[in-house]
Amino acid sequence: MLDRIRIVLIGTSHPGNIGGTARAMHNMGLADLALVAPRCEPLTSETISRASGADTIVHGARRAETLEQAVADCTLVVGASARSRTLPWPMITPRTLGARLPKELSGAESRVALVFGREDSGLSNAELQRCHAHVHIPTNPDFSSLNLAAAVQVLAYECRLAWLAQQEEPEGSEAEPNQPMASHEELEHYFGHLERTLIAIGFHDPALPRQLMARLRRFTLRARPERMELNILRGILTATEKQVASAQDGPRHESDDSDTPSP
Amino acid sequence: MLDRIRIVLIGTSHPGNIGGTARAMHNMGLADLALVAPRCEPLTSETISRASGADTIVHGARRAETLEQAVADCTLVVGASARSRTLPWPMITPRTLGARLPKELSGAESRVALVFGREDSGLSNAELQRCHAHVHIPTNPDFSSLNLAAAVQVLAYECRLAWLAQQEEPEGSEAEPNQPMASHEELEHYFGHLERTLIAIGFHDPALPRQLMARLRRFTLRARPERMELNILRGILTATEKQVASAQDGPRHESDDSDTPSP
Repeated sequence: MLDRIRIVLIGTSHPGNIGGTARAMHNMGLADLALVAPRCEPLTSETISRASGADTIVHGARRAETLEQAVADCTLVVGASARSRTLPWPMITPRTLGARLPKELSGAESRVALVFGREDSGLSNAELQRCHAHVHIPTNPDFSSLNLAAAVQVLAYECRLAWLAQQEEPEGSEAEPNQPMASHEELEHYFGHLERTLIAIGFHDPALPRQLMARLRRFTLRARPERMELNILRGILTATEKQVASAQDGPRHESDDSDTPSP
Repeated sequence: MLDRIRIVLIGTSHPGNIGGTARAMHNMGLADLALVAPRCEPLTSETISRASGADTIVHGARRAETLEQAVADCTLVVGASARSRTLPWPMITPRTLGARLPKELSGAESRVALVFGREDSGLSNAELQRCHAHVHIPTNPDFSSLNLAAAVQVLAYECRLAWLAQQEEPEGSEAEPNQPMASHEELEHYFGHLERTLIAIGFHDPALPRQLMARLRRFTLRARPERMELNILRGILTATEKQVASAQDGPRHESDDSDTPSP
């Protein structure tokens, strides 16, 4: 899907923005860049510096004199635009654009172009009117002009998310490689051990519970402890009990509750 | 909501990235920037050129020597990170982060910090372990290193979308008022207290750390402690320390390390 998305830059003035665009594209898995009538030399040391290794995309870029040439084979052309224009046009958000991409790009010959205008003046009305729709990146109304490469970054990011969703990669999954979680029984043993220890150190009086154990339960359960973490916590309790025994008895006793795994 | 989100840049090397960050922030309606131990002069002509009018944000930036100082008052600290680390940490997507922000920021004293590391080496493990969660911007695995300002742009964009979505929700659907959460500074005081206590009870040897503190940090940060819960935990540590003191000073005559073997 991503290989059918073309980024089109019209009349770019700053080589650094071309380099930054190439980097943003490559980061997000896009590779098809078209430069329409650039107003600078596209490949300078600044391009290469900002591209940070993605300058191959600039080397391979299509060159065109007009928008029409650059998007001739595209089945959907979307222009990046500020919100207000004299002639209202279908306006979509970047997120809506992303949501539409999988369907738009399902055909073998389908191509989507995302078109970005000049740093100083954006896209002309004529260019905007060659687009199927306009996409507006929501910005602070008091400071709405995005850097060109930053605008490309945001739309390329939405393209990648749409592609990932299509791959059915789980979103927001935790990074943990399935450490065994503590079982209910292990948790209850821990809470019992915790309460005995808190009584032993004089922190907890079962006659005046003040919801202490309830609060500690809620806190601990919220974290969804792994078994190994619970073992650490029980090891701490056992070490604490040894201190209590030394403090009270002089000659130390091991605690009776010696069902504690070592950490 | 957006005024309670802080962008924290650690050890930035290139003034242009600071300018680009300021522009990305201002575009998305963020204003709170913190610079931790920058490795360049933050305000140069390149900063001002890339900021494109947003250099007021750099002028007003907090300066700090350490991450701790920069996020001391923050109730949620999220570090931008590549996916794989030796000790897995809760990992969220930028979109999940955005979805969480309205609730996270519903309390009057809540603050969220989004932390970005060095251009060449990112965040250190110690810095990552001071974060509640890590956020990973999905990228092309073959070219995964985003430009710093581009990474800020993507997360700031998600912050703005979350804020816009909140504006559209009918009144009365606000998140329930939360208990005050523990701040970063309170958490760090707790971790310091915890480590001292674990050493005192003989459970932790800083010369052989075995990731013990990292594991306890991860567990605790995952639970997102409320201030009251942290007070309980610190009370337990203080009660434990008293036991250690009596064990050492009390009327007993054995040598310190003569652990009596169980019969």
